[in-house]
Amino acid sequence: MNKPITQKNKIIRASAYIGTSLDGFIARANGDIDWLPDGSGGEDWGYKAFFKSVDALVIGRKSFEKVLSFKKWPYGNKPVVVLSRRRLTIPKRIAQTVESSSSSPAKLVRQLSQRGFKHVYVDGGKTIQGFLNAGLIQEITITKLPILIGKGIPLFGPTQHDIKLRHLGTKQFANGFVQSKYQVLR
Amino acid sequence: MNKPITQKNKIIRASAYIGTSLDGFIARANGDIDWLPDGSGGEDWGYKAFFKSVDALVIGRKSFEKVLSFKKWPYGNKPVVVLSRRRLTIPKRIAQTVESSSSSPAKLVRQLSQRGFKHVYVDGGKTIQGFLNAGLIQEITITKLPILIGKGIPLFGPTQHDIKLRHLGTKQFANGFVQSKYQVLR
Repeated sequence: MNKPITQKNKIIRASAYIGTSLDGFIARANGDIDWLPDGSGGEDWGYKAFFKSVDALVIGRKSFEKVLSFKKWPYGNKPVVVLSRRRLTIPKRIAQTVESSSSSPAKLVRQLSQRGFKHVYVDGGKTIQGFLNAGLIQEITITKLPILIGKGIPLFGPTQHDIKLRHLGTKQFANGFVQSKYQVLR
Repeated sequence: MNKPITQKNKIIRASAYIGTSLDGFIARANGDIDWLPDGSGGEDWGYKAFFKSVDALVIGRKSFEKVLSFKKWPYGNKPVVVLSRRRLTIPKRIAQTVESSSSSPAKLVRQLSQRGFKHVYVDGGKTIQGFLNAGLIQEITITKLPILIGKGIPLFGPTQHDIKLRHLGTKQFANGFVQSKYQVLR
């Protein structure tokens, strides 16, 4: 008889899926993303398919505040964990699906795994960096926009050591976007 | 009768052609490029064809010192201008083709144009940034390696304003290199 699957053996996968300027910024220094397309053009560069593949999100506080400023909450009914050291006020309209956490990436991944989540979408510069440094991101999809903005909030930050990646494939789009998918190796 | 072509109308083009880590560094903080392939594998990712297309090089002092440390001077008989505020000592073995200059990018491009050069290869982080900010680079080819090194010498730096680019095409290689070519728009 096979042993039952223990908590330890539950598989959880985390992915980043993010757009950056060619110089590697995810937003201007003040958080503005005016240089990104507004999504009204019909083409979504694979975002919907990716979003459908995840069953929970982990985002940083800054990303959360940015997303709150949008006309519409973009994450539907997907569970969202906002990483924040301080307690956050979650608006009632999204309180059913949004919670805050001050856990470390490792602890949070354990908790999410125990709750049965299989594929987590990690978003926001600091959050992605924290998960990467903890070895807890398996895939990164970066969509490079054909613009240099000179300064801002970088996607990547310091690492404790080199992190090698396996290039899984690159797509190019008519508007100049170049989207590369990588598997994170250790 | 057509007017003679004046100095002003001489066409000079400048290109950058450079490899970076996925997090945008061209070298480690100390200048090391140990994470780049040593070129012994046969594949050159289009470098030879690009090198053949240029008739002069402009490189920064740090790149010059790095290149001097190589076993072999890699630029053959192509004229090389090393940008440096202070006077440099050029080894005799390369003194025929290498000179130093403290000119601004604009002045240097004028001088090179007057000397009849048509296509200049601009190399080194600070040098590329200076030429880009002066609006003097027309094409950039970036080869992204599948590695994060966390810190180092960045390819790009602050800009006075957004710089828009036109994506000309991206090639992907079996070893995971992703090479994108851009035209710089103003």
